[in-house]
Amino acid sequence: MSEKIRLYVDTPLGEGQSVLLSRDQAHYLFGVMRQQVGAYVSLFNGRDGEWQAEVVEAGKRKGILLCTKLTAPLRMPPDLWLLFAPIKKARTDFIVEKAVEMGARAIAPVITEYTNSERVRQDRLQAHALEAAEQCGATYVPQVQAAGRLDRLLADWDPDRRILFADESRAGTLDALIGAPGPWAILIGPEGGFSSWERETLLKMPQVVPIALGPRILRADTAAVAAMTLWQHSIGDWQGGGA
Amino acid sequence: MSEKIRLYVDTPLGEGQSVLLSRDQAHYLFGVMRQQVGAYVSLFNGRDGEWQAEVVEAGKRKGILLCTKLTAPLRMPPDLWLLFAPIKKARTDFIVEKAVEMGARAIAPVITEYTNSERVRQDRLQAHALEAAEQCGATYVPQVQAAGRLDRLLADWDPDRRILFADESRAGTLDALIGAPGPWAILIGPEGGFSSWERETLLKMPQVVPIALGPRILRADTAAVAAMTLWQHSIGDWQGGGA
Repeated sequence: MSEKIRLYVDTPLGEGQSVLLSRDQAHYLFGVMRQQVGAYVSLFNGRDGEWQAEVVEAGKRKGILLCTKLTAPLRMPPDLWLLFAPIKKARTDFIVEKAVEMGARAIAPVITEYTNSERVRQDRLQAHALEAAEQCGATYVPQVQAAGRLDRLLADWDPDRRILFADESRAGTLDALIGAPGPWAILIGPEGGFSSWERETLLKMPQVVPIALGPRILRADTAAVAAMTLWQHSIGDWQGGGA
Repeated sequence: MSEKIRLYVDTPLGEGQSVLLSRDQAHYLFGVMRQQVGAYVSLFNGRDGEWQAEVVEAGKRKGILLCTKLTAPLRMPPDLWLLFAPIKKARTDFIVEKAVEMGARAIAPVITEYTNSERVRQDRLQAHALEAAEQCGATYVPQVQAAGRLDRLLADWDPDRRILFADESRAGTLDALIGAPGPWAILIGPEGGFSSWERETLLKMPQVVPIALGPRILRADTAAVAAMTLWQHSIGDWQGGGA
């Protein structure tokens, strides 16, 4: 299997546009992947779609590519945010990766009462999101927000943005999703669950739709994928079987 | 948050039954978790439900618990197998963990044409499944099967067991799931996809239901959770909102 090489770049892409690689990208492309002048790779920047580009200069620490043709238009994921309480480093990385694959438009770590808040490194998580986008064929890269406190976020919450709230104790159904497009957020709690105050506050908000995710206790990363699957399947960009 | 301690044991459980801990479990319970005589923990063995048990002897390398009361009956997951092509070690572990949380009854690594088959350690994966069951509150532990070749498995496939086949190239719908209970398997391919022969063979089988999982390329572990979510939600034990 020769997989297509995809690289995220932070420069404009378009017909005839030259792109200067970063040192790390040149090392990866020419050193690790052994590509040479004349090879084709795919580039995307989160704004201009995916471009086929030809290697025109290849050095140890630099390289230049030339955009030759648009291979996929920009495809924005639906207006869905993933809010999650940061957990252990590896699992937090994992949630970010999954949010990109599953098609979130923004990713926001939220500090809840029961969050054991190690410091969340926004730049590292954003880099992780870029890598996931390279892997999964996305043309858009969700923004990773700075970590914020849940109570403050909720106090100032957009009345038009609904919240799908994965609540172990509530047997909600998905019916509330059907025919309710528009902005949404999915909220995944920490492994210890939400505090009573948080749960009560959420359940009082008219934007909140609680759903249960089966009879077993899901880890936060599993719950994130499961909730996003139900949402994408019901009203997101998986409708009509994907495509 | 004081989480309930749950331990898997390989001995019978029942009213008044004594349970001898393994050396590792005694170390974990008394050394790491600092439990003492008189403390209560939860035990399950995959057959007799979940039991509250009291510590009656606590030593550095051994311990005895006494079952006091049944706290949850055995709850079998639906008759759903998860078949997946083994990938890198960490991701394979992850798929096993997710299969337990999501409620598979059996887990089978399958070797496909594009599987880069590192050796699959069945015993290690089974241990991983036990740990996941301890975490997620399951009273049943899925069996991890020995790795088998996909072509042989398909040649001898039970005519009554349907296969939900996550096929990137097919826009199937979930309608085929509705009202089709009975034995099922979910088949997740390797990151390189299935070969043409495998795909054709699968699509010719009357048991096979292809589904697409959205417009982005999902990693195998993400695809496993997503496909199991759709299945559990449609005809599995998440119906009626879980519980």
